[in-house]
This record gives sequence, structure tokens and C-alpha cells, in this order.
Amino acid sequence: MMGNALIVLAAGQGTRMNSDLPKVLHPLGAAPLLAHALTAGAALAPERVIVVAGHGAEQVGKAAAVWAPEAEVVLQAEQLGTGHAVRQALPALERFEGRVIVLYGDTPFIRPETLEALAEATADVVVLGFEAAEPGRYGRLVTGPAGLERIVEFKDATEAERAIALCNSGVISADAATLARLLPRLTNDNAAHEYYLTDIVALARAEGLSAKVVTCAEAETLGINTRAELARAEALFQARMRAEALDNGVTLTAPETVFFALDTHIGRDAVIGPNVVFGPGVTIESGAEVRAFCHLEGCHISRGATVGPFARLRPGAELAEDVHVGNFVEIKNAVLDEGVKVGHLTYLGDAHVGEHTNIGAGTVTCNYDGVMKHHTEIGAHAFIGSDTMLVAPVTVGARAMTGSGSVISENVPDDALAIGRARQVNKPGLAVRLMEKLRAEKVRRQKESK
Amino acid sequence: MMGNALIVLAAGQGTRMNSDLPKVLHPLGAAPLLAHALTAGAALAPERVIVVAGHGAEQVGKAAAVWAPEAEVVLQAEQLGTGHAVRQALPALERFEGRVIVLYGDTPFIRPETLEALAEATADVVVLGFEAAEPGRYGRLVTGPAGLERIVEFKDATEAERAIALCNSGVISADAATLARLLPRLTNDNAAHEYYLTDIVALARAEGLSAKVVTCAEAETLGINTRAELARAEALFQARMRAEALDNGVTLTAPETVFFALDTHIGRDAVIGPNVVFGPGVTIESGAEVRAFCHLEGCHISRGATVGPFARLRPGAELAEDVHVGNFVEIKNAVLDEGVKVGHLTYLGDAHVGEHTNIGAGTVTCNYDGVMKHHTEIGAHAFIGSDTMLVAPVTVGARAMTGSGSVISENVPDDALAIGRARQVNKPGLAVRLMEKLRAEKVRRQKESK
Amino acid sequence: MMGNALIVLAAGQGTRMNSDLPKVLHPLGAAPLLAHALTAGAALAPERVIVVAGHGAEQVGKAAAVWAPEAEVVLQAEQLGTGHAVRQALPALERFEGRVIVLYGDTPFIRPETLEALAEATADVVVLGFEAAEPGRYGRLVTGPAGLERIVEFKDATEAERAIALCNSGVISADAATLARLLPRLTNDNAAHEYYLTDIVALARAEGLSAKVVTCAEAETLGINTRAELARAEALFQARMRAEALDNGVTLTAPETVFFALDTHIGRDAVIGPNVVFGPGVTIESGAEVRAFCHLEGCHISRGATVGPFARLRPGAELAEDVHVGNFVEIKNAVLDEGVKVGHLTYLGDAHVGEHTNIGAGTVTCNYDGVMKHHTEIGAHAFIGSDTMLVAPVTVGARAMTGSGSVISENVPDDALAIGRARQVNKPGLAVRLMEKLRAEKVRRQKESK
Repeated sequence: MMGNALIVLAAGQGTRMNSDLPKVLHPLGAAPLLAHALTAGAALAPERVIVVAGHGAEQVGKAAAVWAPEAEVVLQAEQLGTGHAVRQALPALERFEGRVIVLYGDTPFIRPETLEALAEATADVVVLGFEAAEPGRYGRLVTGPAGLERIVEFKDATEAERAIALCNSGVISADAATLARLLPRLTNDNAAHEYYLTDIVALARAEGLSAKVVTCAEAETLGINTRAELARAEALFQARMRAEALDNGVTLTAPETVFFALDTHIGRDAVIGPNVVFGPGVTIESGAEVRAFCHLEGCHISRGATVGPFARLRPGAELAEDVHVGNFVEIKNAVLDEGVKVGHLTYLGDAHVGEHTNIGAGTVTCNYDGVMKHHTEIGAHAFIGSDTMLVAPVTVGARAMTGSGSVISENVPDDALAIGRARQVNKPGLAVRLMEKLRAEKVRRQKESK
Repeated sequence: MMGNALIVLAAGQGTRMNSDLPKVLHPLGAAPLLAHALTAGAALAPERVIVVAGHGAEQVGKAAAVWAPEAEVVLQAEQLGTGHAVRQALPALERFEGRVIVLYGDTPFIRPETLEALAEATADVVVLGFEAAEPGRYGRLVTGPAGLERIVEFKDATEAERAIALCNSGVISADAATLARLLPRLTNDNAAHEYYLTDIVALARAEGLSAKVVTCAEAETLGINTRAELARAEALFQARMRAEALDNGVTLTAPETVFFALDTHIGRDAVIGPNVVFGPGVTIESGAEVRAFCHLEGCHISRGATVGPFARLRPGAELAEDVHVGNFVEIKNAVLDEGVKVGHLTYLGDAHVGEHTNIGAGTVTCNYDGVMKHHTEIGAHAFIGSDTMLVAPVTVGARAMTGSGSVISENVPDDALAIGRARQVNKPGLAVRLMEKLRAEKVRRQKESK
Repeated sequence: MMGNALIVLAAGQGTRMNSDLPKVLHPLGAAPLLAHALTAGAALAPERVIVVAGHGAEQVGKAAAVWAPEAEVVLQAEQLGTGHAVRQALPALERFEGRVIVLYGDTPFIRPETLEALAEATADVVVLGFEAAEPGRYGRLVTGPAGLERIVEFKDATEAERAIALCNSGVISADAATLARLLPRLTNDNAAHEYYLTDIVALARAEGLSAKVVTCAEAETLGINTRAELARAEALFQARMRAEALDNGVTLTAPETVFFALDTHIGRDAVIGPNVVFGPGVTIESGAEVRAFCHLEGCHISRGATVGPFARLRPGAELAEDVHVGNFVEIKNAVLDEGVKVGHLTYLGDAHVGEHTNIGAGTVTCNYDGVMKHHTEIGAHAFIGSDTMLVAPVTVGARAMTGSGSVISENVPDDALAIGRARQVNKPGLAVRLMEKLRAEKVRRQKESK
């Protein structure tokens, strides 16, 4: 069987978004809209992926490189219609002989199963259609014994054609050769003076080629044109992710307050409290617990670990089994081995902490010297006292301790106690005398300011 | 054209609120209910604003002074009806010859456009009406060729009158002179023994004066009588603010989790994450980003600045362009110049920080000495080490550094390094011996307690 | 009048939950499902409470001990039906002569009033029924002049019986003696080969005993079988708690974002901001304020106290009147006397703080030495400077002060100032020279790495 190529149209500005950001880069599920079509398409293991960019092409290219590193980005300098856009992709398809599927960067809900059905359909041209609940002004797909006979625009449709509920999604598949032959014959003699991709159906049928409809649920074809539509799409996306997590055996106390990213993975019997926000790249193993008010990105939480409330895990945070990260704690680019406890008010960045080490409240890895970032290494079974400043690069050995309030700028050997602390002095009666003085000063100032 | 006066009735206790707080002071959009009517009325640039207070008059007067500093507060000692309430305002209208509009402090959704229409309507008495979806027991407005003929209470209405959907909102406008002449003629011979303001329509018509209806949407007339109604009003208010922000080109990932105040202003292409709460007085410029879990009041965030997650900006926080405020950071009454970074676990209060200065994790401006608050001044391009205590009043110069863990109680000159730190001492093997001792002690205590 | 006994069936695994946790231990309102039936049952002041456990019996027993300490847990080793389950409880009812009510651990919404009606009903066997909006495949209760005539399964029901809307909830009450006599006569000759408790109605009627229906709202009988159903039940539970709080005069700015526990108590005119999560055991007095983003468990907040935003109160946090706990503050097992202020970035654990004491930002009670927890005692009217480490066990006296950045490991007498701080040294020009060196080093490394 021949391979597939994917073309994703992503050139529009999206004027109705009222934004300087190209439409396909607006976020849905903590990923650009474009990422959703690319991710769905990846299920086909396409031989080629071509993103047609226009507005903000450089930014769009960068996003494409993140979500589909193999993608080739081609430029549609002027936006002259979908047919014109696909034509820009033809040079990139030279020497490709398989099936081409054309998707839209602003249509994020198309399912991999639908793309597979499209790829497997055997007609010369295949159009993705849907039964619309309210067909309204959509183009209608007129089918007959020979498959898809024609696509008729609403304004040109007869009464009988308007009664058809099967509508045109705009998604199409065809052999590369067919596309290459038909696209140059598209014309723009219509009101918008645009070249429409779906006009190739008429061209194909006129040549005696076969055309066919593959159908999907209407919700899969949802396109996004305004921020209000994007907000509704986000709500829909989240509703699906939440339902899927519940089905998979995740405990969500208040599913409606948990925000998933496109690539969030959570194991069975993990517990997620209310008000948890997942950025991209989070995996949580079975039986881990994330309490209320957590913000997680690019991190891994292992079985038996507990996080939060009020914790922030940033990219590179790796929590091994039974790690505890408590409140007002930030972890960035740091590996915490099994059983590490970081209970309160701590920043660990660019660090490795050995197993069963306890990190006291108020600890900070001073990883930035104003110019460079440095690493902190803490051994196993160590005890970092509260308010310890670890001035990186620095190493604290296994079973070592630091006295609370110490600034640790030199390595601490295994088993050693490190302390850097001025001796406490009690000055009898001085607190009361100081307060009296301050109060008198306040009275003096108040008088002066009158 | 003559000027307008605004009377806002705000004397009721609101028994059904089950609260000691006067009803008009319950919050909606982080402002007292009363503020909404006053803010809508401000669009008329009224020459006089009179708030009629009763229950909790002192508190109501204070709130009025915040939201309409020019307002005069008059006391309605006994609550004898809306007509009686307006009569208390007459002395304050002496020598005023224009149009008077009477609003209600517990009716927050009336739009400025509606007030303008009321002010411009030319009849002797103008009543604000609305087409009710379910007219139920509202008073009906009976209109004819000559305008408003009469207001009929539901219980007195004929079958035909009950079929009228045009209902009485209670909002009225009339010339000051007309009000002054008619109000003393109101009677209280009704079931509640109250003087009803809208009875002046009958008095006016009996004199041959003209009456007219101006209409608005039913939603504008929504009054609030219970906490459940207040909660629904808050939901409605938030839904509007969210929709308006989306229309204005603001990116709201999860609009349903963002809570606006009456006066929140956010620029185009600003990004607001989930779970952000705005108190009063926040302005955010285009292209700023506020991440999840932020709490903002009385602050300004400039273009390119990023805030949160888990940041709290309190009144007087001013963030210039490209400032970064990270997690578990509180900023109060502090100006942060361009490019300042405050990444983690910091409290900055009563301070000014010069451009491109970096504030380390765990920094605190010790602004309170137990009696007075003091200012901290930090220069540009400085580097404040982690866990620096800045004991105000104190100045750190431009390009200066502080060593992490230092208590800075004396000024630091430009370019200087300030450090106050005990030398680190490593005591070999002591950590392990200490732990053994502690474990033995624990065992001893456990034995003792048996 | 004779006493009551309560049997709660809690043996099922709940396969459709897709969980290792026994179904009745899944949380609803921050309490296991089982706790809801036990709490409702407690209103009857039952003489005996018997929980029939099976899957995860040990865990179920522990939960029962928390929510109904007097409960006896009996084991149903094999799950052979509800009748079999109740039979396991009979030995525990020896010498009990009163009324027995059988409830389900996965049916959390049954109301105490309903249980009272059941307990007071006088027939030999009483079945709890409900008028189903959509009776579907529920068993029908066929009633006649003599009360409940029989229970008919849907599949065995005639057309006429299927038209009956009165359905069987499965909840039953009967005298202990009746149960003991009838249960052994149940058979399992049905499709599932289970012993059904409700079959005792037929046995009772065949003996000429009386049977009766007590009805409740359908919502009370809601059982939980999947995580999606649990999430809907949580939403329902929260909606009720929120509505009840509003009725009781609590101010909830955004009720839909506040999550209550089964036992949350909040006084009139308390103010609860958006995004507040209550764990078990929280009481809040009238007029206290909890701001946005707070997480509260096992704590008490007195009149006039203010908490948050971003505060976490853990079990044993007791806030007296007018205490202020601010942002990024954690309080655990600590009593704060009247007027104490803990504004920012602080951890107080295992402590007592005397009235009107001020705790500076960044303060930590170092309560854990790696082996044991220790207590910190702070007197009244004291002033704890910012970033004070209180190395417990330690006592700070009344009116005492600590210098900011001090590590306090020895007791501080009343009125004394305690300070432990290295002297600040300013090194002119050194900051600039250091930065230059660091920048040069960075350049060198970048060259090397090429």
C-alpha cells in the first residue's frame, strides 16, 4: 500500500480573532491550534507533512517544527484560496506518489480514525462530509449511485438540494498525481475571486474520475474563527479530556476545574484535586496525588508521590516514587529521587536530590549568578535545614546536614554538618526600649507633618 | 440643554439577604452594588448626584464617596417607600432646574445608553419599562396614543391589562420642579402603607401632563433581593465581562475561571490564564501575560510583562515593560522598572526597583518595624542575592550586588557588593552523630511514655 | 420506644469505578462515600451501627472508625447479594430487639428525615420507594389497600405493572427478629445467583406480615457506579452546600468555585472568595473572611479574622479573633491568639503565638529535626523579624523581638531583643568586577564548547 502525505493549511491571519497572533497559533489545550491537526495526522504515519504558512509564517514554522519535526513549511505569500494554498505544496510533493490528505490548521477536532477512513477510501477524490444538525449555508454534497456527484454551494442550490443534510467539510484526499493535474485548472471566477480546493471534485467528475464521501461527526469539523469560538472549543476539548480521564480510572474531585493539555497522561487511580492546570508535557503515574491549586508543565510524577496544594512543577521536574512536594514550592529542571520531601516555601532549580533527603522550608538553590545557571547536587539521606541557601555550583554529600539559615557556598562532604551562622545574642529589655523609641519617633513625625 | 441630576435609592436593609451589611454594599464585580448604578449614571455627567441612604447610612456614604466623590448623601431615617425616599432628596435639589433620574442601588445592570435615552425623552414624566418574558406579578404600563396612560398593579389589572407584557421597572425621570410639586401629593393608602414613586404618573396625567415610556432590555432591570440572586447576578456580570474581553481581542484560556472587577481594563492580545481574580483598579496593557492562579488589585501591568503563576499584586504595584514576576511573589506599593525580574518567593512592599535588576528568590523588603512602614530603593542593573533581607529604610545602588542570605540594613553604594554572612564551617561526621543521638533520644522518649 | 440499628452495606468493589480503591471509599465532599450514609444515619442515634465490608475490608473498617467510631465491622467474604450481606450482620445483632434499617454505602444522598420516617413506620417490613421520573428498568412497588403487596422486577412485570412509577430503592427496615427469621429463607434461584434482600417482602407477605412503603425524593436514592456518576454526585453535593451557605447568609462571591466538605460550617456574613477548597473539619465564624485561593482543612477561623489569598490552613490551625493570615502562608497544628498577624511567606507548625504578635515575612518554625517534631512558643505582643528561623523546641517571650535573618535556637526572655546576624560589609566596586569576571567566564565557556 502506498504511503500518505498530509497538507495542513495554516496561512490565514484570522481577522476575526482580533489578534496579531496568526490564528493557527492560538492555544487550545496548551498547544497551538495547528498542533491538533498535526497530532491527529501523525496517526497515519505520513511520509510527508507539509504546512502551508502565510501570515506569521516564521512563527508558524517554529510551531510546526515543535509538533511535527519532519514537517516541511511552504509559503503561500498571498492568500488566494484553499486551492491556491494546496498548489503551493505541490513542489514539495514531487516524487511522492501516494495519497494526499488536506487538513486545516484551524480545525482541531478531527479524529485519527476519520483520517484513516479518508486514507483508505479508494475513489480518485474523497471528500470528508458530515450530517449537519442545522445545514444552514454550508455547501451540500450531492451523492448518487456513483458516489459523490457534485458539491453545490448553498446560494446555487435548488430547494431539493438545500434539503440535503450532508455537508462539505472542505477536507479532501486524492492521489498526488490527481491533485497535480487538477489544481492548475481551478479558476477564481467567483464572488471572492478565490481558488477553491473543493472545485476539483467537479473537474474530476468531468474527466470521468470517481468521487466519494467519507463522513464524520459534525463536531470533528468545527472550525475556529473568533475568540469566543476558541473559548467554546477549549471548553469542548477539556470536557473530552476530563471524561476520558474518568473513564481511564483517574480520580478527579472536580473535573470541571482541571485543565488538561493535548499531551497530558495520567495513570489509573491517580488523584487530581480541584483547580489543577496542566501545561504541555506532563505524565503522572498510577496512584500519584496532585492536590488542589497546582500548576504543572513538562514534568513527571511517579507512583506514590504527592504534590501540592499550591505547587508548581516546571519543565524538567522529575519526581521519583513517594516524593512529597508541598505548598509554595517550585521545582524546575530537577530530579528528586525516591522518597525526597520538599514540604514548604522552596525553590529547587537545576538540581539533583538523592533518595530520602529532606529539604527544609525556605530552602533555595541559588542557581543563577546573574550571568550563568549552575547545578546543585544533594546526596541521599541528607537533611537540608530550613532557609538553607545552596549557592550553585555546589555539592552536599550523602547523609550530610546543613544548619538552618546557612549559606552553603562550599561543598559539604558526606556525613558532615555544614553550618554558617552568627551566634544568637539576647539583649535584655532592648525590644521594649526599641519599640518605645519607634513609637516616639512616629508621634514626632506626625506632629511635624501637621 | 439643561443638566441632569441623579438620585440613587440606597436606604433598604435587604432583609432577605440575611446579612448585617446593607444590601447596596454587597459586592458585585468586586464593587458594591451601589457602585454599578453610580458608574452607569456617571455617563450622563450629572450636575448633581444624590444617594438616599438609610440602613447603614454611614457605610453607604463611605462607599458613595469612593465611587462618586461628588455625590451628596441624604438620610431617609424611616423607610416609607420609594416616593418618600425621593422626597428626602428634594432639599438637595433646590436651585436645580434640570431633569432628575431616579435609580435603585440594588439594580446594577442598567446601561448608560438607557439612561441617556431616559434623559433625552421629552415628556413631563418618563418611566423606564421593559417587555417581560414572563410578566407575572409586575405592574403593567398601559400606553395609548398619548404615551403612557397609567401604571396598573397586577392585582388591580383586568384580564386585558394582564395580557400586556410592558412592565414597570420603577426607574423614572422628570423635571425637578415636577417632582417637587407632585411628590408631596403622594399618599400611602395601600396595603404596605408606603409612598410609591411611580404613583406620580397618575398625578401627572390627572393634571394633564404628558407621560412616556422608554424601554430597555429586561436584564437591565434585574434587582437583587437574596444572596442566591446576587450570585446569579455575579455570574451574569462575569459572563458579560468575559465576552467583552474576548471581543476586545484578549486571550482567555478558560474565560469561565476569570473573575473581573467593574473597572478591569485589559489590552488586546494580553493573555490571561485560568483562575485569575481581578480586584478593583487593574489595568493590563496589550501583550502582557498573566498566568494561572493570580490575584491582582490596584495594579498596572505593562506590555511584555509576565506575571505568575501564583502571583499576588496588591494596590500600588506598577510593572513596567518586560517585567517578570514569578511564583509565590507578592508586590505591594512598589514600582518595578523595565525588565526587572522577581522570580520566586519574594515580598516587595513600599519599594522602587530600577530597570533590569534581578531580585533573588526569598528576598523580603522588611518594610515594617512594628510601628511604621519604610521605603526600599534599589537601583538599576542590581543583583539582589537570594534570601536578602532589605531592612527599610535602605538604598541599594545601581549595579550593586547583595550576597545571598545577607541582612542589608545599611545603604549599599553603586557598584558595591554588600555581604553579611557567617563563614561556612563543615564539621566532618557530625551530621551522622547528631542523627544517631536524635534517634536514640526518640527511642528513650518512647520508652518513657509507655 | 425501641431503639434502632443501622446496617450499611459496603462490601462491593465497584468494578465499573476502574479503581483499586473500594467503591465506598471514593471521596464525595472530602469524605468517603460511606461517611455520607453513616452521617445521615447518625441522626437516628442508632444503638448499633454495623458496616458490612468485603473488598478492602481493612480500609473500609478504618474509614468507618473515623466516621462512626461506635460501628462494628463485619466481613462478607464472598459477595453473594444484599440478602447475604445483611445475614452476615445478624450475629452482631444478637440481643438487639429493635428496628433495623439497611442502607447502602454507595448511596450518599439519603436524608436524615427519610431515615426517621423509615424508623417510625410501623409495618413488619418497610421499603423505601421513590417516584421515578423515568422508571426504566427499576423494580416496581405494587401497593394495595394493605400497603406494599409485592416488589416486581422489571423483566417479570406486566404492562400494567410497568406503568407504576413507584420504584424500589433497596433500602429496607424491619425488626431484628423478623430479619433473623426471614433472611435464612432467601434463595438465590435467579439469573445472578444472588440472595436479594428485598425478596424478604414476598416472604413476609406470604406469612401474613404487613409491608409498607415510605417514599423519598428520587435524588436521595442516587447510587454511584462509575467515576462519571461520582463526579456528577460531587457537583450535586456542592450545589446543595453552596445553596445552603447562601441561604444561611454566607457571602460567596463565586459559589461555583467553592468546594465544601461534608462537615464544613460557616457563619452568617462570613465572606468566602473565589476558588476556596474546604477539606474536612473546618469551622468559620460569622464575619470572618477567607479570600481567593485558600485551602483549608481541620481548622477554625474566628470572627473578624482574615485569611489569604493563597493561604493554607492544615489540621490544628486555630485562628482567634482578628487574626490575619496572608499570602503564601501555611499554618499547621498552631494556635494563633487574638490579633496575631502572619502576612507573607511563612510556615508555622506546632506552635502557639500570643495575642497581637507580628510574624515577619519568611519566618519558619523549624519544627522537625529529622527525627522528631518540636514545639515553638511565642509570647504576646512580640515582633518576629522577617526570615527568622525558630529552631524548636524554643520559646520567644512576650514583647520580645527577633532581628530579621536571625536563627533563634535559644530561648528569648520577655522584652529582650534576640539577634544572630553577621555584620554587613560593603565592598566598593566589587559587584561590577564580579559581573565582568562572570561574563568573561561565560564567553570562555561558550568558546570551549564550540
